Amino acid sequence: MGQDHPDSKLFPHATGAAALMVKEHEKEDPLKLYSGWFCPFVQRVLLVLLEKNIPFQYIEVNPYQKPESLLKLNPRGLVPTLEYNNKPLYESTVICEFLEEAYPSATPHLLPSDPYAKAQTRIWVDFVTSRIIPAFHRFLQNQAGSSISIETVRNDFLDKLKQFTDAMDPAGPYFFGKEVSLIDLILAPWAVRLWVFEHFKGGLDIPNENVWSRWARWQSAIEQRDSVIKTTSKKEHYLPIYQRYADDTAQSELAKATREGRGVP
Amino acid sequence: MGQDHPDSKLFPHATGAAALMVKEHEKEDPLKLYSGWFCPFVQRVLLVLLEKNIPFQYIEVNPYQKPESLLKLNPRGLVPTLEYNNKPLYESTVICEFLEEAYPSATPHLLPSDPYAKAQTRIWVDFVTSRIIPAFHRFLQNQAGSSISIETVRNDFLDKLKQFTDAMDPAGPYFFGKEVSLIDLILAPWAVRLWVFEHFKGGLDIPNENVWSRWARWQSAIEQRDSVIKTTSKKEHYLPIYQRYADDTAQSELAKATREGRGVP
Repeated sequence: MGQDHPDSKLFPHATGAAALMVKEHEKEDPLKLYSGWFCPFVQRVLLVLLEKNIPFQYIEVNPYQKPESLLKLNPRGLVPTLEYNNKPLYESTVICEFLEEAYPSATPHLLPSDPYAKAQTRIWVDFVTSRIIPAFHRFLQNQAGSSISIETVRNDFLDKLKQFTDAMDPAGPYFFGKEVSLIDLILAPWAVRLWVFEHFKGGLDIPNENVWSRWARWQSAIEQRDSVIKTTSKKEHYLPIYQRYADDTAQSELAKATREGRGVP
Repeated sequence: MGQDHPDSKLFPHATGAAALMVKEHEKEDPLKLYSGWFCPFVQRVLLVLLEKNIPFQYIEVNPYQKPESLLKLNPRGLVPTLEYNNKPLYESTVICEFLEEAYPSATPHLLPSDPYAKAQTRIWVDFVTSRIIPAFHRFLQNQAGSSISIETVRNDFLDKLKQFTDAMDPAGPYFFGKEVSLIDLILAPWAVRLWVFEHFKGGLDIPNENVWSRWARWQSAIEQRDSVIKTTSKKEHYLPIYQRYADDTAQSELAKATREGRGVP
């Protein structure tokens, strides 16, 4: 559903806990994930791979010098691209569902087995991609003096998070209850980037309503997941990337689409 | 992924072959499809139900007087809405995959069993919804004197169809070969509406290149499917609906999104 590459002077590799994870996955494996350490769409796929303990090879892609092996698989050179039996797969949500189906003995199962609950997962996956992420970027890229006020884009983003939260199992902590599942991992990369609003946009300003305590419980459970911790780099290296989003000078496909009023490309 | 309701003076029910199909599905059934006879997103779901011979009840929704039973299930009152065990499901592509999974003994199976081929289906389903349908509407709603020429929107639409065709099994006639599958049915409703460009926009002007003979073979196979014939009403009743799209005065969510440069809402 999109990609997310930064623009210039990109720090070249994962750091902190994520650097250890990369090191554990650097040796040759038939399943290869072409990655960008900063990219939330890549992180979705990494979360599924780590949660299910599926062996894979991590390949960091320098967006200014994309490897031939990637361009052969995917002429647009986007990350995440998965190489499976020498064949390419892209679109983070498609890759995540593929991993669930291609490795049926890898547990935990991240999709409910009940077809109705599975359909609900797909509805909310689509909601994250087509509603929450565009609202995240409209808020992040909003500029003082633009025709739409910061309050409007902030409230719109909070409204989307609230709708998502309202659909959760009331007890939690995860979307469907006690166990983590795909819908949690699909939103997780943005949930652990919410500090960008504190840092650049004067805060998220979450209202003091009951629904938000459910949101906080979900967010805290997500932040404490091993897989999330292991795929997160040091904040100082995300900062210059998100600075360019916050200044609305980023040149990624997603940044440009947001500027032009389109959705996730 | 969207809805498609017309605006005014809507003919109230299916006609021609579709009227017979509706009559065969008017008796009470726990599986209910809230429908609009003209709506291509509804037609997707009908195609899956008919191909798999799943019993269901057809309920025509008057968009100006939505039944309480629908509004209880889906406050926005969109079609298609599926009622399954008194619970709602919406989004045509989600409903189609749900039917495949909830009725595992209903044949033919419309999704490949191989996870990689299934992932390819999902990539192309997304391509139809996020690329082909918006291009269809930009072409159909293009107005003389607008900043984008009719040639540009026509070529963009043809380019999208060409990409879809290039991905097909070379022999065919269907996308994956001899057997019809979900990806064929997902695009079919728009394939059988291509006459709108002949009628309103001076023709599709398909170039005389080899790839287009593959497209023609696919389109002809689709047009001849029983399920497609049985879900198509008389052209004369589609005409006033598409007239309003062609004049860019339609007020459906999809028409407005196209006017504002957004995708399928």
